[in-house]
Amino acid sequence: FRYENQATYSGKAVYNCIRLEPDGSTRPTTMRRRDLMRMTNIAPRDLRRIDPTLTLTRTSPCLTAREDVLLVNLGGVRLVVSEDHALLFEPTTGPSVRFLESITQRLAQLRRLERLPAYARGDLTVPVPFELEVVEAALIMGTARLDNKLLRVAERTDVLVRKITGPSGIANPITAEMLEELRRVKIQLVQLESRAEAIKAAILEVLDEDEDARELLVSKTVEDRKRKEAAAAAMIEALRNTPVDAPAGVVLSPNLEITVTAEEGEEETEQERLDRMEGETEMCEELLEYYLQRFETVHSESERLLDSMRDLEESISVSLASRRLAVNQLELRLSIATFAVAIGALVTGAFGMNLRSTLEMSVSWFYGTCCLIVLGCFLINRLLLSWTQKMKILS
Amino acid sequence: FRYENQATYSGKAVYNCIRLEPDGSTRPTTMRRRDLMRMTNIAPRDLRRIDPTLTLTRTSPCLTAREDVLLVNLGGVRLVVSEDHALLFEPTTGPSVRFLESITQRLAQLRRLERLPAYARGDLTVPVPFELEVVEAALIMGTARLDNKLLRVAERTDVLVRKITGPSGIANPITAEMLEELRRVKIQLVQLESRAEAIKAAILEVLDEDEDARELLVSKTVEDRKRKEAAAAAMIEALRNTPVDAPAGVVLSPNLEITVTAEEGEEETEQERLDRMEGETEMCEELLEYYLQRFETVHSESERLLDSMRDLEESISVSLASRRLAVNQLELRLSIATFAVAIGALVTGAFGMNLRSTLEMSVSWFYGTCCLIVLGCFLINRLLLSWTQKMKILS
Amino acid sequence: FRYENQATYSGKAVYNCIRLEPDGSTRPTTMRRRDLMRMTNIAPRDLRRIDPTLTLTRTSPCLTAREDVLLVNLGGVRLVVSEDHALLFEPTTGPSVRFLESITQRLAQLRRLERLPAYARGDLTVPVPFELEVVEAALIMGTARLDNKLLRVAERTDVLVRKITGPSGIANPITAEMLEELRRVKIQLVQLESRAEAIKAAILEVLDEDEDARELLVSKTVEDRKRKEAAAAAMIEALRNTPVDAPAGVVLSPNLEITVTAEEGEEETEQERLDRMEGETEMCEELLEYYLQRFETVHSESERLLDSMRDLEESISVSLASRRLAVNQLELRLSIATFAVAIGALVTGAFGMNLRSTLEMSVSWFYGTCCLIVLGCFLINRLLLSWTQKMKILS
Amino acid sequence: FRYENQATYSGKAVYNCIRLEPDGSTRPTTMRRRDLMRMTNIAPRDLRRIDPTLTLTRTSPCLTAREDVLLVNLGGVRLVVSEDHALLFEPTTGPSVRFLESITQRLAQLRRLERLPAYARGDLTVPVPFELEVVEAALIMGTARLDNKLLRVAERTDVLVRKITGPSGIANPITAEMLEELRRVKIQLVQLESRAEAIKAAILEVLDEDEDARELLVSKTVEDRKRKEAAAAAMIEALRNTPVDAPAGVVLSPNLEITVTAEEGEEETEQERLDRMEGETEMCEELLEYYLQRFETVHSESERLLDSMRDLEESISVSLASRRLAVNQLELRLSIATFAVAIGALVTGAFGMNLRSTLEMSVSWFYGTCCLIVLGCFLINRLLLSWTQKMKILS
Amino acid sequence: FRYENQATYSGKAVYNCIRLEPDGSTRPTTMRRRDLMRMTNIAPRDLRRIDPTLTLTRTSPCLTAREDVLLVNLGGVRLVVSEDHALLFEPTTGPSVRFLESITQRLAQLRRLERLPAYARGDLTVPVPFELEVVEAALIMGTARLDNKLLRVAERTDVLVRKITGPSGIANPITAEMLEELRRVKIQLVQLESRAEAIKAAILEVLDEDEDARELLVSKTVEDRKRKEAAAAAMIEALRNTPVDAPAGVVLSPNLEITVTAEEGEEETEQERLDRMEGETEMCEELLEYYLQRFETVHSESERLLDSMRDLEESISVSLASRRLAVNQLELRLSIATFAVAIGALVTGAFGMNLRSTLEMSVSWFYGTCCLIVLGCFLINRLLLSWTQKMKILS
Repeated sequence: FRYENQATYSGKAVYNCIRLEPDGSTRPTTMRRRDLMRMTNIAPRDLRRIDPTLTLTRTSPCLTAREDVLLVNLGGVRLVVSEDHALLFEPTTGPSVRFLESITQRLAQLRRLERLPAYARGDLTVPVPFELEVVEAALIMGTARLDNKLLRVAERTDVLVRKITGPSGIANPITAEMLEELRRVKIQLVQLESRAEAIKAAILEVLDEDEDARELLVSKTVEDRKRKEAAAAAMIEALRNTPVDAPAGVVLSPNLEITVTAEEGEEETEQERLDRMEGETEMCEELLEYYLQRFETVHSESERLLDSMRDLEESISVSLASRRLAVNQLELRLSIATFAVAIGALVTGAFGMNLRSTLEMSVSWFYGTCCLIVLGCFLINRLLLSWTQKMKILS
Repeated sequence: FRYENQATYSGKAVYNCIRLEPDGSTRPTTMRRRDLMRMTNIAPRDLRRIDPTLTLTRTSPCLTAREDVLLVNLGGVRLVVSEDHALLFEPTTGPSVRFLESITQRLAQLRRLERLPAYARGDLTVPVPFELEVVEAALIMGTARLDNKLLRVAERTDVLVRKITGPSGIANPITAEMLEELRRVKIQLVQLESRAEAIKAAILEVLDEDEDARELLVSKTVEDRKRKEAAAAAMIEALRNTPVDAPAGVVLSPNLEITVTAEEGEEETEQERLDRMEGETEMCEELLEYYLQRFETVHSESERLLDSMRDLEESISVSLASRRLAVNQLELRLSIATFAVAIGALVTGAFGMNLRSTLEMSVSWFYGTCCLIVLGCFLINRLLLSWTQKMKILS
Repeated sequence: FRYENQATYSGKAVYNCIRLEPDGSTRPTTMRRRDLMRMTNIAPRDLRRIDPTLTLTRTSPCLTAREDVLLVNLGGVRLVVSEDHALLFEPTTGPSVRFLESITQRLAQLRRLERLPAYARGDLTVPVPFELEVVEAALIMGTARLDNKLLRVAERTDVLVRKITGPSGIANPITAEMLEELRRVKIQLVQLESRAEAIKAAILEVLDEDEDARELLVSKTVEDRKRKEAAAAAMIEALRNTPVDAPAGVVLSPNLEITVTAEEGEEETEQERLDRMEGETEMCEELLEYYLQRFETVHSESERLLDSMRDLEESISVSLASRRLAVNQLELRLSIATFAVAIGALVTGAFGMNLRSTLEMSVSWFYGTCCLIVLGCFLINRLLLSWTQKMKILS
Repeated sequence: FRYENQATYSGKAVYNCIRLEPDGSTRPTTMRRRDLMRMTNIAPRDLRRIDPTLTLTRTSPCLTAREDVLLVNLGGVRLVVSEDHALLFEPTTGPSVRFLESITQRLAQLRRLERLPAYARGDLTVPVPFELEVVEAALIMGTARLDNKLLRVAERTDVLVRKITGPSGIANPITAEMLEELRRVKIQLVQLESRAEAIKAAILEVLDEDEDARELLVSKTVEDRKRKEAAAAAMIEALRNTPVDAPAGVVLSPNLEITVTAEEGEEETEQERLDRMEGETEMCEELLEYYLQRFETVHSESERLLDSMRDLEESISVSLASRRLAVNQLELRLSIATFAVAIGALVTGAFGMNLRSTLEMSVSWFYGTCCLIVLGCFLINRLLLSWTQKMKILS
Repeated sequence: FRYENQATYSGKAVYNCIRLEPDGSTRPTTMRRRDLMRMTNIAPRDLRRIDPTLTLTRTSPCLTAREDVLLVNLGGVRLVVSEDHALLFEPTTGPSVRFLESITQRLAQLRRLERLPAYARGDLTVPVPFELEVVEAALIMGTARLDNKLLRVAERTDVLVRKITGPSGIANPITAEMLEELRRVKIQLVQLESRAEAIKAAILEVLDEDEDARELLVSKTVEDRKRKEAAAAAMIEALRNTPVDAPAGVVLSPNLEITVTAEEGEEETEQERLDRMEGETEMCEELLEYYLQRFETVHSESERLLDSMRDLEESISVSLASRRLAVNQLELRLSIATFAVAIGALVTGAFGMNLRSTLEMSVSWFYGTCCLIVLGCFLINRLLLSWTQKMKILS
């Protein structure tokens, strides 16, 4: 029991990463944990969210914006994204390789498109910032993985359902294999559901808080910060120079200080700035909302399948119970018949005793007894059956 | 594993649509994906929400407002609606055909009504914008489909319940057919529930966000944008011309700039504009709320039916268990009786052995033994039964 | 598949109503759908919420405020309430008759009380508007119906529980009648729960939105609208007359325009108006909250009963399983004993064969064999029993 | 079906109460319903929340603030609390007696402490208003009752679990008594849970709404109202006297009117007043939050116990099923063996027929047949067993 | 039934604590309850949240900020933290010892780091306040405990699942030990889930309310309060000195009073103060959010495991039912065969009767009968089997 791993804590851990540039070029690199934290200015705690050496990160997807970087852990891809580069951890795993392939293609394509004249670009005229491209590629990885899993499990479900349910209901011998497959499908669906849930939660966390969605645009955040610092400085300067009798009410709220400093030469008014920010927020929100809906679809679909599997199991259970009752009822009939026969056998046994009944030589007794035994058996059987039917035990 | 389908991605996919005009006239048209995106100014991501070539759209209903268009995917109808026309995808499917029929009738009727003098119009005097008419028609399609499904499944449920439950409880032989029908009804109800849920979510997404409901009125949004641009331009102009010593506090919030530019000649004051916008928002909200309630009703009704089906299954299960117990108890009685008879048979068997018991010639032993066997059987039976009754195993 | 019923759509449908005046007098009346909509100024969609000819209204309670009227569908009573009268649909159904009886009594009593001197009025001095009286009467109808149902079903539950559970646990023969009653009680409780839920949702919809609760007071809404229109007109007039250099910031928000137009002669200041509105909102909220709590109580009580019924069913199920095990264990004991006896019978049978064993005349063999058979039976029985006890199959 | 009880409605009902003064003295008193309503100025509807003659109040706890009084129905204690006295209904029930005892002790102790010099008072220096003392005492009653119930049911649960689960799993004979106790414990836990839930809801209703928590301090509310009325009067006066050209924007919001009327002589500024109100709100909130957490603990604990009881029941069910399977499997083995023996018996029976087989005198046939029968029995048994084992029916 | 324990109530209870200083030094100390309350200025009610003598604190984690102190009860550690020291209750329990060890190490390390030159400090340059260090250490204790528990239970689950489910489905003899282990794992998971839930609730309570997160920084709160008191005093002074004709609108809201009192000599402007506060709030929120996510992970993971255990139990149940059906079906086959044999035995018995059939000397009758019996047995068996197969009772 210590503050996590000591090596990790002291910052001496070393990560093998791939550094991805906005132009799509990649370069392997090695980073010490300490350097990474100093460079990205994030708390040790935050780094743990995407640290590939911790098992925590296997189950907790993450999409977190900090001052200057985005921490991304989606679909098996772990990234630290800043405005001008992205670091991909564990670059040799399957998802990372596929991610790299698709993002580099995509970025290269974007660069080619930018070089084309406007009329030939088609539908891709809006310049999407680098960090958002990376996040979208990671989100696509995530959806693709879950979609694939869902597809495969849905197929298995389909096959299973077709096997278990024939045209006239639940298959008659429910084999152990069917039940085992049912159990495995259920486990997979529970996993799928909880993963989709976790990713949804991570995306919702960004969407819920008011201005967070725009925080994904770390390049804009950095710009804003610089602009704000400059403006604040200017305002303070202005305040110091204002004569004391100026109406104090001027500074209505900190967001309006720009109007004071807005000068003729500036290229962007407050109104334009707000419009631009709103547009950026909307861009982020639309992106996240789309993928949120995708994960939502995976989640609700796997939930539906899981529900239907549980219902199927319940149906199997009731069907088995109903069959068991039928078997038991038939056994009961046989027990009744066997009981009647046993009574008959008792009579024959009695006459088979080596004791003197004085009837030994009577032929009529022999045939009479035989007939009586047969009749008796039928009668006992009949009486018992009708009694059970009256008692509604047999139908 | 690629960014979706390559053909789709490059914008070369082609859609067969029907173009619907506000006057109710329709015209088949063919559109390239690229042209559609350029025309409607929506992101590729958004188009995927209603793209009929993707399986995603089968399960995810959609009602999304973007700058200039509405993306509608409700009740099997996929539409892109803008202020002056609507594009209907996959126009040959059943729902699309029925949708077209009803919307064209409706629009034609509206045109006729507009031509009538006011006193004859009846209750349809409020002019509803074209896009809202289309959305309502799609919503009606959606409710009608789910209502029909619910109706049919409710009928099946009714028949089934009447079959399974007689006047004296659960039907005695629960046949495999009943259980199979129960299973199928449950599957249908789960589907119905999840569809109603999905549509509810799509409508709620529009209703929840504050000003979204009004966004459905794309014609108004376009108008507003133009008006706003003009006003912003005017204000900037005004600001530039204001002398520097004017109180900066004047511009309290961007929404009030109109008061500055409000001039005598303008036909609409700020107050009137707000009232009108509020009215429009209310119109959209009332429409959506009504259909939301309809889907809510379908949802809660199918949930109730599903619950009652699950309760019925549980009741069947308990009823089967209770019957099985009765069968088992009767079998136990028979086992006891058979055991007693077997003891008797053992005695007769013993006397039937070809060994010398020296009693061979005793008639009294014969009859005595017979009586004893019968008595013994009854006694053993009685003793065992009363013991089981004391042990509360039999009643 | 059409826009609902054509007759309904074209506004030619005719409703038989009873018109209720604020003084408690009633008068049967017939209304065409078109006239009703023109008179009350509501959309066709809204009318469908309370239209008695639609099955939708059976399951969806409604309490909706529109411009000038309240649409009420609670406890089997369908009403359109405006400031000076109420229209009751389907006046001949049981709930409508009881509703009419109680509301007319109540209104008459209020009129009598108003005529009394103040000291004699007792606790009813606050003048409650007519529309609120009607809504409360409908809410009382709703609570009374559900309370009655809950009461009856709780009694049935009580009787059933007492029947099923004796002093020493679950009754021994669980009869099919008990299970059937259990099933029926569960169905009733599910219905009760979903109805209380639906009414709760309808009330909450009014309470949740901020200023909606006061919207119930349609008479006040009408008053307000007139006042507001007058004020708006006055303000616009004032603005037009203001010299251009007046500080534009004066008009801080549309709600404050009254202060500008407040003149000495007016009998109500802004502050008084706000206080009065707050009081009215509170009056509506307190009314709704009380009935909300009543329905909440019904809901949670029926939920609790339903839970306890499901728990009871589960208990019955486990109890049956436990008894079945006891029966099976006893059958096993009997099977063991029967098996032992069968072995003995086999031996006797062997000696009964008409084959020569050379022991035919030995008396000692006869008695020896008999003893050995009996001993053998006991031994086999004992060995098998102790083995099963060691295997923990029998106790 | 009437508006509740007629006697109650007409206000003629009479309550026996105990009147509790802030100094801890009590005095029995009798009140007519009408007088109570006139005195406390609450609606008939609100009185019903705590009216001891209605069964509704058994299940619906209540903590409601009205203008001048608090309506309290917690832990079996029904109170109307105003700033200077409290009325306790049904003073002879157990909870009421215990409540009176503790509250009078507490109030007396507080009076004693107040008379002590400051250094000796210890930790009770903050003067808590009378109404809050009463509410806290009622809340303590509520927690104490539920805590006690939880404690007792937890003990029963503990004993039961120890009885049902031995060191090697579920006890072997699950007796009906265990199951009955399990059922009863579950019922108690469901009740406990729903009561804690109801009280939580009542407290949350006060805490959720923004300024409600402070409303508990009815003495402060009364003070405020008087102060506000005075201020409003003053402001109106001031407005009337202001010259028309004063900037209308002065009256920014109704809450700030005090600044206008704040005069030198006043002992409390606006800032101080806000701070004091905030402190009072905090005092109420902290009190309610603490008890909310207590009820929350009871709720979650009883939920946990209920869950564990349900899990236990499920475990018992599976355990019974598993045992039944073992019993059935053993029965199957016996059936196989019995079948083999029956075949043997058939052979002996055949040779026992009084028909001529010409082998009657062969000794070797006798012993041969006997051996063959025994061998045959073993063989049949063995073959059937190994077949069932191959079919995985027996292990 | 009293106000809790009398000793506790009167403030005479004594606690053994360890006092922890910001420099990491510790010192055992003894505190009377009364002194503790006077020193920390908290209500008796709040102290009960962490009072180690109450059982309540076992199950209710707590993280509550009061005026000057933090009340912490997390992971088995109970603390009162103020700006310059922390009191640890029950310092000898396991968690307390481990907590002390890690926090003292951590604080000492921080002191060492502070003495290092800046370039050597690595990633720990932000000065974290003492109280936050303590809270984080307690949170780490909590996560470590739950993580460990989860790890252990997950391992047990793994072993169990591997034991219960072989390659071909559920293990054939489900032993009582497996079921018992399953039951115990479920109990542990329920506990784990409810604990994680409780801690999550405690953290969320701090995060939900708007400015609460910053309240954790009690040192800052104390600073703020002093600053505010000074500012308020200054403002009141300023107001008193303002001439009456100053625009009253100046004082827009109590939060802006600083602008009035902001003088040249002040080192921090309003803007800087807001920025600093925002940064502090963010520091607290990021810390809490990280641990919230950790507990969330534990919670959802244990929920997933619990779900999978319940699914496994359900699978076992269905598997047992399916096996029982197979056993029953085989028993039925045997019953049929035994019945056929019994019929045969009856025939042999009949011929074994010591009655005269006149066929005694016919050898052909002997062999004929034998053949007929065998054939008859086979026939009866076959007919019954095919009938049951036609009835779908056997497959």
